[in-house]
Amino acid sequence: MALQMEPDLPPNLAALKNVDNLLRCPICFDFLNITMMTKCSHNFCSLCIRKFFSYKLLCPVCNTQASEQDLRNNRLLDDLVTSFQHARQQLLKVVFESPPISPKT
Amino acid sequence: MALQMEPDLPPNLAALKNVDNLLRCPICFDFLNITMMTKCSHNFCSLCIRKFFSYKLLCPVCNTQASEQDLRNNRLLDDLVTSFQHARQQLLKVVFESPPISPKT
Ligand SMILES: [Zn+2]
Ligand SMILES: [Zn+2]
Ligand SMILES: [Zn+2]
Ligand SMILES: [Zn+2]
Repeated sequence: MALQMEPDLPPNLAALKNVDNLLRCPICFDFLNITMMTKCSHNFCSLCIRKFFSYKLLCPVCNTQASEQDLRNNRLLDDLVTSFQHARQQLLKVVFESPPISPKT
Repeated sequence: MALQMEPDLPPNLAALKNVDNLLRCPICFDFLNITMMTKCSHNFCSLCIRKFFSYKLLCPVCNTQASEQDLRNNRLLDDLVTSFQHARQQLLKVVFESPPISPKT
């Protein structure tokens, strides 16, 4: 769940955009928070998927039958979210402290 | 399993080192390849963990009882490995094409 808005990545860090997207919850689109994985290998915030299951017992991504007791913690995702957010902040500093040089002419 | 050696990250991309480490298999230390997750939420290459289970039925990280039928594909990790390797290559290009400028004196 969102605590604060993340700034967009500058063009020279655009390569990180795919990694950024993969670390987000398909329900709330924020970074995964207490990641739970279904049997069908899809990942959601714990809160998001539990709310969804109170509505219907399907995976919101692929519509496979799913239920709360089949959820499994995917802790590596939580660690990746933390490390990625940290790296992103550090890289933003690098980018703004060392602007690109135009090619020599 | 290793196909080629990855170059070390330059100092201004060191922030990505933690992400890099998290995406590696605790058995072979290479990037995860067909990631399988145990019930205890630890991740390994499919081949690495199956070989290990032929030796003993424990999680190599936390020693919890584990077995092949409890393994679950963790496909998001495979996608993250691919995207991270791609991003890393693009960022290395950015770094070498735009060396840092010394602060104005
Ligand atoms: Zn969510
Ligand atoms: Zn699914
Ligand atoms: Zn491995
Ligand atoms: Zn374990």
